[in-house]
Amino acid sequence: MAQFAKCMSRVSGEAVREILKLMADPSVLTFGGGSPARETFPVGVARDIVDKSLADNPAALLQYGVTEGWPALRQAYLDHMVRPKGVKAELENVMTLTGSTQGIGLIAEIFLDPGDHVLVESPTFLSTLNVFRRYDAVLVPVRVDDDGIMTNDLEEKMAKYKPKLLYTIPTFQNPTGRTIPADRREKIAGLAAKYDVIVLEDDPYCDLRYRGTPVPPIKSFDKSGHVVMLNSFSKIISPGLRVGAMTADPAIIAKACDAKQLADTHTSNLVQEICAEFLNRGLLPGHLKSIVPLYEERLSAMLEGVGAHFPTGCEYTSPEGGLFVWVKLPGGADAQALVKRSVAELKIAFVPGRPFFADPNEGLDCIRMNFSSNPPEKIKDGMERLGKFFTAECA
Amino acid sequence: MAQFAKCMSRVSGEAVREILKLMADPSVLTFGGGSPARETFPVGVARDIVDKSLADNPAALLQYGVTEGWPALRQAYLDHMVRPKGVKAELENVMTLTGSTQGIGLIAEIFLDPGDHVLVESPTFLSTLNVFRRYDAVLVPVRVDDDGIMTNDLEEKMAKYKPKLLYTIPTFQNPTGRTIPADRREKIAGLAAKYDVIVLEDDPYCDLRYRGTPVPPIKSFDKSGHVVMLNSFSKIISPGLRVGAMTADPAIIAKACDAKQLADTHTSNLVQEICAEFLNRGLLPGHLKSIVPLYEERLSAMLEGVGAHFPTGCEYTSPEGGLFVWVKLPGGADAQALVKRSVAELKIAFVPGRPFFADPNEGLDCIRMNFSSNPPEKIKDGMERLGKFFTAECA
Repeated sequence: MAQFAKCMSRVSGEAVREILKLMADPSVLTFGGGSPARETFPVGVARDIVDKSLADNPAALLQYGVTEGWPALRQAYLDHMVRPKGVKAELENVMTLTGSTQGIGLIAEIFLDPGDHVLVESPTFLSTLNVFRRYDAVLVPVRVDDDGIMTNDLEEKMAKYKPKLLYTIPTFQNPTGRTIPADRREKIAGLAAKYDVIVLEDDPYCDLRYRGTPVPPIKSFDKSGHVVMLNSFSKIISPGLRVGAMTADPAIIAKACDAKQLADTHTSNLVQEICAEFLNRGLLPGHLKSIVPLYEERLSAMLEGVGAHFPTGCEYTSPEGGLFVWVKLPGGADAQALVKRSVAELKIAFVPGRPFFADPNEGLDCIRMNFSSNPPEKIKDGMERLGKFFTAECA
Repeated sequence: MAQFAKCMSRVSGEAVREILKLMADPSVLTFGGGSPARETFPVGVARDIVDKSLADNPAALLQYGVTEGWPALRQAYLDHMVRPKGVKAELENVMTLTGSTQGIGLIAEIFLDPGDHVLVESPTFLSTLNVFRRYDAVLVPVRVDDDGIMTNDLEEKMAKYKPKLLYTIPTFQNPTGRTIPADRREKIAGLAAKYDVIVLEDDPYCDLRYRGTPVPPIKSFDKSGHVVMLNSFSKIISPGLRVGAMTADPAIIAKACDAKQLADTHTSNLVQEICAEFLNRGLLPGHLKSIVPLYEERLSAMLEGVGAHFPTGCEYTSPEGGLFVWVKLPGGADAQALVKRSVAELKIAFVPGRPFFADPNEGLDCIRMNFSSNPPEKIKDGMERLGKFFTAECA
């Protein structure tokens, strides 16, 4: 049988497939995944928008659209999600995406030649690592502390490796939940210009803030056009719609549209219209206000449970928002082995840390836990039982 | 500013952008593009499906889905569009796509290493040529006659170039409208097995047959698993939804899912549900029955107009279905120059033939005309005026 391309041998969907498999078993209490709570989906509004919009504008919605995006959504994204965050942008700076995931792939595709260096936070979103591997990039981890990327290390590595890209999730990072403060963001934008490095700022969680003060995106500090900002409707409206958007220099938008045209021609008009109308009806602020207390309660339940029941010597993050808490277990724990036993014995799932690192020898004792998709009682129960399990295993 | 990847310099969105620009001017009568008629969109059904399905199953529709596709659509596609065509397949053989365009990209991505040879019909769909160029494939045109691919030439080139892929649109081909008969299809499937070549059978128009007898897909003759069949909902329900599907060997489906997971995670659930319900409610056969006379009338108007008014020495195809008629103008015409003057002087657009050929020196005197998106009166008027223009210019 014909051989698959060599580049595909570097890509493994295994880690994500394992997570999905664990989530598919309804008898397992899962803290894996990164799904928003189904209770937050604006079902009635979505029904009403589709009904009205298909009645008013059926031909345009059901006909081919343009690669740059459904015009109403490009404008609404600019007005409601870009400019209010202090980013100076015009229509030529924005395009819509089939989920912000698509933006990661498009930026990798249009910028990366085999052997190009890419800087990544260590740890970072595991699917993105696979995207960069698929393009045969050399992954260079950048050191992080509780405030995310350490800019001294970043500058050293920009100077040493002359990377094409830096990939960062600056707000409530996946998997750690950490947020980069404004002064470091400004510094990152400056370094990108100085060393001619594209910054891929992946910011799907920025509106899910339950505590503390919002921080402007790195893009708001960008004077040279080096920063590409990705935003998502998955966590604030619905992930099943698959809608995201990108803000970047017009030359980057044009090249990304060339690549997107070949990838899927354009994103479905109908789901873009749902997002556009949601924004244009002014529903986002109120919707976020209703989500925040729900998630804040779940985050508190997880942090309290970890603090009360997890073994001595555990280190864990205390995010101000997002979906994830990151735990480093004590005693040289093997998280990969532990998750298998936890699922078998406790019927509780979480994600082992290793796939989030570019270096396969890192993160063996780390786990990522999602708090958004279970009610507080289940989180409390889960943390208590997991805590006992880890205490017995990692002592 | 950071350099774009070298591979992207081989890709130009120019030809398609030019077409879209011509189509955007409402004062231009356009036979460019490949859009289905807006009158055919099942608006009421789509509204009803979204309304009912979002009421019945909101959490699953709006939550993350699986990369393989919305389960109801995978099953419905298999039951209504794969098995009835004589293709033996199970669920593991099918996945859904963000438009069948995505399938072309995924198959190129998972099979092509730089320098791999790819056989293409000459002419063929221009966007596909760009996809293969982007993966640095060597394009080898295969000779065609009125029955499409000439299998003697195909076998010679399979033996000589040891290609990884053959790309074909076997039914009502884009741009020529030609259909490969059953005996050649069987031969193609056999040659694919003999020479270990993947056949990418792109079949978006197969249900738009206005005359003659349906021909089984190449996939129905596939005994070795070398044929990948792509189908689309764009021409039979709505292109704005962006839904397609693929039937292939399970190992190919699994690898394509790895690539799709990185590309867009999954296709929007809601638009997949519209297609699934449309099939499951048994609406497709009746819908096609209503489309066929509409398009048949338009095809007739175009063929009659070309026959009556185009200059002596014109050669043109007489398709039994699909969306396109292909014309070779006489006298060494320069179609690229003619379309510019035709738009400026006549306010009539069509697509010049050159971008449909792998060899940029071919097709200079050819044009593609779409008959699906204009009513018969406009087609009659357009053919008459174009015929006079060509007669004056190409005599």
